Amino acid sequence: MALDQLSATFAALSDPTRRAILARLLEGEASVAELAEPFQMTTRAVSKHIGVLEAAGLVTRGRDAQRRPSRIRAEPLVDVDMWLQGYRRLWISRFQQLDERLAKLQMEGRTGDRE
Amino acid sequence: MALDQLSATFAALSDPTRRAILARLLEGEASVAELAEPFQMTTRAVSKHIGVLEAAGLVTRGRDAQRRPSRIRAEPLVDVDMWLQGYRRLWISRFQQLDERLAKLQMEGRTGDRE
Repeated sequence: MALDQLSATFAALSDPTRRAILARLLEGEASVAELAEPFQMTTRAVSKHIGVLEAAGLVTRGRDAQRRPSRIRAEPLVDVDMWLQGYRRLWISRFQQLDERLAKLQMEGRTGDRE
Repeated sequence: MALDQLSATFAALSDPTRRAILARLLEGEASVAELAEPFQMTTRAVSKHIGVLEAAGLVTRGRDAQRRPSRIRAEPLVDVDMWLQGYRRLWISRFQQLDERLAKLQMEGRTGDRE
């Protein structure tokens, strides 16, 4: 099944090791060997994860034949951010409701003190 | 495999139908039958998708035995937003680099006009 871009991005992000690899690449580009080290994984396993990230457009590989360093790409994350934008009003309005309920409870508490 | 919460959320969001169901629930709670209608899917297929969303905490089901309306939950999306926060500096700095490059090109263009 050909995934749409956003689905491919979410699927690639649904693995803690792949998110850890992205977090590492946020500090700068790295070769497969450099990425494998902190994770105590085989380079073969790390290569597979990088392949998934690359297919989703979250990573590009350098042309240097020896190292082929991985570099993080921001574009799919910008798309996630834009998708999320539609849902922000949901939690903002729910936080506001919670705020109002708290304020009301505090008002009632104060009225109770006075009585 | 027991998925961590964030992985479960990303996995649940990696399907366009599940994202469409969430978008519908943003307008208000809905029963399985109400959700199935616009998607021209069987209620069985929709129920499966809601089950995945519910397992990831993105949806809760009402107690009304007849309708069991689904309601969207904001919390896992807030977690995605917080995760994304670490990556925003990435695209902000890349946009700034692009901006600076453009400004430089425009400056060079203007200098060229004068000559």
